[in-house]
Amino acid sequence: MRCEIVAIGTELLLGIIVDSNSAWIGEQLALAGIDSHFQVKVGDNFGRIEATIRHALERSDAVICCGGLGPTQDDITRDVIARVMGSELRRDEAIAERIRTYFQSRGRAMSQNNLRQAEIPAGAHAIPQMPGTAAGLVCPVGDKVIYAVPGVPAEMREMFLGTILPDLGRRSGQSAVIRARVLRTWGMAESGLAEVLGSRVEELDRLGNPTLAFQASGIEGIKVRIVAKCDDEAAAVRILDAEEKLIRGLLGDVVFGVDEQTMETVVLDLLRRQGLTLAVAETVTGGLMSARLSAIDWAMETFRGATVGPDAAVGSSEQRALAAATRVRQQLGTGVGLAAAAARPDEGLPPGAVFLAADISGTARAEKFMLTPDRRRMREFSVISLLNLLRRMLSA
Amino acid sequence: MRCEIVAIGTELLLGIIVDSNSAWIGEQLALAGIDSHFQVKVGDNFGRIEATIRHALERSDAVICCGGLGPTQDDITRDVIARVMGSELRRDEAIAERIRTYFQSRGRAMSQNNLRQAEIPAGAHAIPQMPGTAAGLVCPVGDKVIYAVPGVPAEMREMFLGTILPDLGRRSGQSAVIRARVLRTWGMAESGLAEVLGSRVEELDRLGNPTLAFQASGIEGIKVRIVAKCDDEAAAVRILDAEEKLIRGLLGDVVFGVDEQTMETVVLDLLRRQGLTLAVAETVTGGLMSARLSAIDWAMETFRGATVGPDAAVGSSEQRALAAATRVRQQLGTGVGLAAAAARPDEGLPPGAVFLAADISGTARAEKFMLTPDRRRMREFSVISLLNLLRRMLSA
Repeated sequence: MRCEIVAIGTELLLGIIVDSNSAWIGEQLALAGIDSHFQVKVGDNFGRIEATIRHALERSDAVICCGGLGPTQDDITRDVIARVMGSELRRDEAIAERIRTYFQSRGRAMSQNNLRQAEIPAGAHAIPQMPGTAAGLVCPVGDKVIYAVPGVPAEMREMFLGTILPDLGRRSGQSAVIRARVLRTWGMAESGLAEVLGSRVEELDRLGNPTLAFQASGIEGIKVRIVAKCDDEAAAVRILDAEEKLIRGLLGDVVFGVDEQTMETVVLDLLRRQGLTLAVAETVTGGLMSARLSAIDWAMETFRGATVGPDAAVGSSEQRALAAATRVRQQLGTGVGLAAAAARPDEGLPPGAVFLAADISGTARAEKFMLTPDRRRMREFSVISLLNLLRRMLSA
Repeated sequence: MRCEIVAIGTELLLGIIVDSNSAWIGEQLALAGIDSHFQVKVGDNFGRIEATIRHALERSDAVICCGGLGPTQDDITRDVIARVMGSELRRDEAIAERIRTYFQSRGRAMSQNNLRQAEIPAGAHAIPQMPGTAAGLVCPVGDKVIYAVPGVPAEMREMFLGTILPDLGRRSGQSAVIRARVLRTWGMAESGLAEVLGSRVEELDRLGNPTLAFQASGIEGIKVRIVAKCDDEAAAVRILDAEEKLIRGLLGDVVFGVDEQTMETVVLDLLRRQGLTLAVAETVTGGLMSARLSAIDWAMETFRGATVGPDAAVGSSEQRALAAATRVRQQLGTGVGLAAAAARPDEGLPPGAVFLAADISGTARAEKFMLTPDRRRMREFSVISLLNLLRRMLSA
């Protein structure tokens, strides 16, 4: 089963919008075991869209067209697909009614243009998921198929997961259930992970199921993705559970979370469960830690705040980090205080040396980290390393 | 002149990396008046890369291949181009020497693999810009041309701007100089801008040079892009200068900056020139303002710091904003204090009402803004609106 993606819109070619839809769809297809060998961007031009879709149908079994389903004259995906199908556009009254209802329920006036969105090629059928005013389409062409979805990411995703992915599964005759789980790690290089997990990876290469893959993601750490393929959901989940347990056993507390968990959500959860609140002295991190924590805990109930400013204290970086963690904890009256202090040239430490400190209920501890001397990266790595230090202390 | 972009790499199809290179190249081509009708992503597969390049050469005059120039077995762009050119790969000793020097100067050992990067198709020549170990290539094919650049954005950009863009200009016989300037605006909707600039846009539609275009960019505001096409650089700059003056006359202080300037750089420059320092009370903005300012002023010389925490004060939102701006200014001993306070339900104000306040040298002023009640967007819009308020006060 080969599925090609065609992203439609002149603004994509001009670089006004980066085409992240194709990347997302590509990831979903790969996860489902469907090949996607080509992904093409083309502008709002009838002849070029038509040539691109025809070419895609020659070399692939399915084509997903993304974009060009809006109400304006530029939006010609429906027209081009009708031409490729050798059919005509017809008003679909059910879609027209849904569009009218969409506007009425929001108290907005509908322009006549919007009814263009209810014209679909004869022989096509509408995708039931329709969160906006654009109808997605399933358009059979011989034993192949063209799908059309809007370029608005949320609408595209709902239609893809609700209709296209299951339809592709049926067409490929693939009855297997594919499920994935991502283990989030921090503190070990990819080569280190590969070494620790090496014999397990080899074993799985022989067994074939589940599979393991690593994905480095900068300050978000390295993701270990487990993919299981089974006859049913329950069996897939059992395999994922078993593999997660095995990998956690090998990696220990390098694994900080699963799937959508981030370092911030994990640390805030740990604090909450232990009835602790948090304050941060942001000399090295310049507000970045606060911005990340308050994006989740916006009412600042667990993360109680921070002081941001240059590091004016005297003493070694270790002393300054410890003192700042304790001071901010006392100042804001929290259970935990966090701080970082970068080594100064006269300390005889290599550039990039940073002490990270945590004071938990009056017991302070500092650790030396070698980070990059580049300021931007030092800020970012200090934030994650500080959160990870606290995570390990709270989990110990 | 038509130029097609081929992005090469299986990780692009799998969605592990989003292809932002093609968007960037597309923008540069558009700015230079070169058409780019198709942009294709293809994996690390010899036959499919070859088919994609051959197809691109049929319908375009130039093809830019991006990626697949690394030292590993996966990196086959050089091999495929040699096949398309009907030639063989040959070791280029000058490139080999540059690669050896690259490793030596960094005190790193070179693996033999890296010399694969010195094998280029006979008939191709290397792009002089070579910031890494991958050599970019210019490969003539009849009267058409294939360019190859690495997928690392910084390397790609240097080669594109240094060699490919001028070469495309020569090939298209286009002697015109195209220069662009972006005016950054904040505080007026796109419809408002279109109204104020309407008659000028119509006039330019008749004249043809320069052209104006609007580009909405979320909390970065709306960009007004002026593009001038002239016989020489000096004439283009004269046109841009005159048009900028005219638009600034129409829009007034809605224009906050030009080209690479951001709201932060503009405000920090204004403060510096007036010998003022800044402190911020981040109750609504939760550290986001600090993160943005310290990303530029990382030593915190002008932006002296912030307090982050929930808003525990009593009083109306206007009173709380004013008091917080004055308090943080006094606390940190700065010339300027900034603060925001969101209206509470008992104030009788609509949801999303926020007072933004600035205290400059003891004179405090607050303004009411209607922002979205959504917390994340309220944070972001408060940051930009506060900076813009201060900009207007310092410019008055």
